[in-house]
Amino acid sequence: MTRPAALLFDVFGTLVDWRGSVARMAEEAFGADVGVDWHAFADAWRAEYQPSMEEVRAGNRGFVSLDVLHRENLDRILPRFGLDHLDEAARQRATLFWHHLDPWPDVVSGFQRLRRIAPLCAQSNGNVALMLDLSRGKGLHFDMILGAEITGHYKPQPEAYLKACTLLGLEPGACMMVAAHNDDLAAARACGLRTAFVPRPREHGAGQTTDLTADEDWDLSAASMIDLADQLDAT
Amino acid sequence: MTRPAALLFDVFGTLVDWRGSVARMAEEAFGADVGVDWHAFADAWRAEYQPSMEEVRAGNRGFVSLDVLHRENLDRILPRFGLDHLDEAARQRATLFWHHLDPWPDVVSGFQRLRRIAPLCAQSNGNVALMLDLSRGKGLHFDMILGAEITGHYKPQPEAYLKACTLLGLEPGACMMVAAHNDDLAAARACGLRTAFVPRPREHGAGQTTDLTADEDWDLSAASMIDLADQLDAT
Repeated sequence: MTRPAALLFDVFGTLVDWRGSVARMAEEAFGADVGVDWHAFADAWRAEYQPSMEEVRAGNRGFVSLDVLHRENLDRILPRFGLDHLDEAARQRATLFWHHLDPWPDVVSGFQRLRRIAPLCAQSNGNVALMLDLSRGKGLHFDMILGAEITGHYKPQPEAYLKACTLLGLEPGACMMVAAHNDDLAAARACGLRTAFVPRPREHGAGQTTDLTADEDWDLSAASMIDLADQLDAT
Repeated sequence: MTRPAALLFDVFGTLVDWRGSVARMAEEAFGADVGVDWHAFADAWRAEYQPSMEEVRAGNRGFVSLDVLHRENLDRILPRFGLDHLDEAARQRATLFWHHLDPWPDVVSGFQRLRRIAPLCAQSNGNVALMLDLSRGKGLHFDMILGAEITGHYKPQPEAYLKACTLLGLEPGACMMVAAHNDDLAAARACGLRTAFVPRPREHGAGQTTDLTADEDWDLSAASMIDLADQLDAT
């Protein structure tokens, strides 16, 4: 296999542990002793993610960034956790939890090798400011931030993948999408991109039942970003 | 002065020596002994730059990337230098000279300090693929590539600056435009951005008469990127 000319990464779940990070930051901000299951809080917040983007995908509203959706979704779930007393400043701070998610332990060292063979691009539904904070604050150091806000389309809409390739000046077949989610890879493959599956069996916690194995014969399947670097001969 | 939250850099002329680099690469590719003044060749190619973008700015044609304009402009000037025999492959290779321009000597070391205080963003009329090659190949390592292809507008159109700030999630006044060209800074200032002038008195060679000094009281004026890092307390 020839090497891909660019690597496009899903971010939430694939590169960073959103669930553990949001739970940790929420507990630190709002207290360990208030009787809230902060992992359930993170799960509830994330559960609003796809439905909120679907309003944009369906054309029911114009494009708005994920920061805006995260804030709206926070407002929606707070009453369920007895947290509707949180003031505006606290809600703004909480929305920024998503800018400071921790990478999985293999990501920074895997990226140091992978960046030698191809540009590393964020291909996420997160907005540019969020990705920049992760990139600079968490040692990811993306070469380029693509994704929803740049293309004007939320994955898995084909425009999100195709416009990213166009901006890179590359044919889709020269680009490789790397994700922990089979549906993301299926959408990328339908656009002609190559695909690499890096499962994250604890993204949703110990009881995870989805995306544990590959649904299709993805071009590569790797146990970690270090394994991906090995398979791509990135030394 | 509070530090800017993001630094936006003009690239051609401000960060890289397009004239010396294009002249050197053209001579290497096409021969030192063919009787062409390669600096005059670089100047002629660059002279087509603004008029070609003006067609896009004026709405006479839809947005096309600078790679496309560079190629068209090359085809336009080749006969003037007795080079209309160059075949398609040679013209394609020559268009990519612009992806491999050398930085001025202060840029890489200045950037190493400046990146500690703010994201370093390309805010250029060059396209993403071109900027990525400069970023990775020449040690610039931009945190983000903004500019014409991302905003859909060529500088100095206000949309080019304003949409860049929006993508960063910042007010214009939190962003600082850094350029060697007074007109770029004037357009940025009109949009509310802060401004830093870093003159490049040899951009156009020994006889340069433009942009030798500041036309306005820019927020900062620095002799180099290292001096800019000093003035911004980037240690």
